Amino acid sequence: MKTEEDDALCKAFGMHLAKVRKSREYSQDRLAHEAGFGRSYVGDVERGLRNISLVNLFKIADTLQIDVGNLLNFERPLDTKNLN
Amino acid sequence: MKTEEDDALCKAFGMHLAKVRKSREYSQDRLAHEAGFGRSYVGDVERGLRNISLVNLFKIADTLQIDVGNLLNFERPLDTKNLN
Repeated sequence: MKTEEDDALCKAFGMHLAKVRKSREYSQDRLAHEAGFGRSYVGDVERGLRNISLVNLFKIADTLQIDVGNLLNFERPLDTKNLN
Repeated sequence: MKTEEDDALCKAFGMHLAKVRKSREYSQDRLAHEAGFGRSYVGDVERGLRNISLVNLFKIADTLQIDVGNLLNFERPLDTKNLN
């Protein structure tokens, strides 16, 4: 079950991903294509609509040539600082 | 669709998670309980049977008090070094 806090975390990640992607001069389409996703997937993740999986995190990191740890190095919303 | 490479990545992550969990002296049950997972979930992740989501990665990192980047800092199998 996805809570409001989970949604906030997915949204914060999505915004960070959009920044990283743009800094690499990738369009959503190009990232989706090179990472092997469907066309709408990257947009959905960037809008926080998808709770991305480990494997897809690595696919994005590999495509954008960024360390997966850096891909997850974003400012968390205050209410998600401790999810438990 | 999960490929053999995806499975290898999930397995490598699972082995790393088991190491981190034991170094924190958490049992699978305790981690599952504190992170809010069902009993079998942690074991399944550690055996590479589950492709863990972003939200659950953060729940585990928060529970074990480890940076999520460190939780993902494991040696990748050679054939998963570039998933695309």
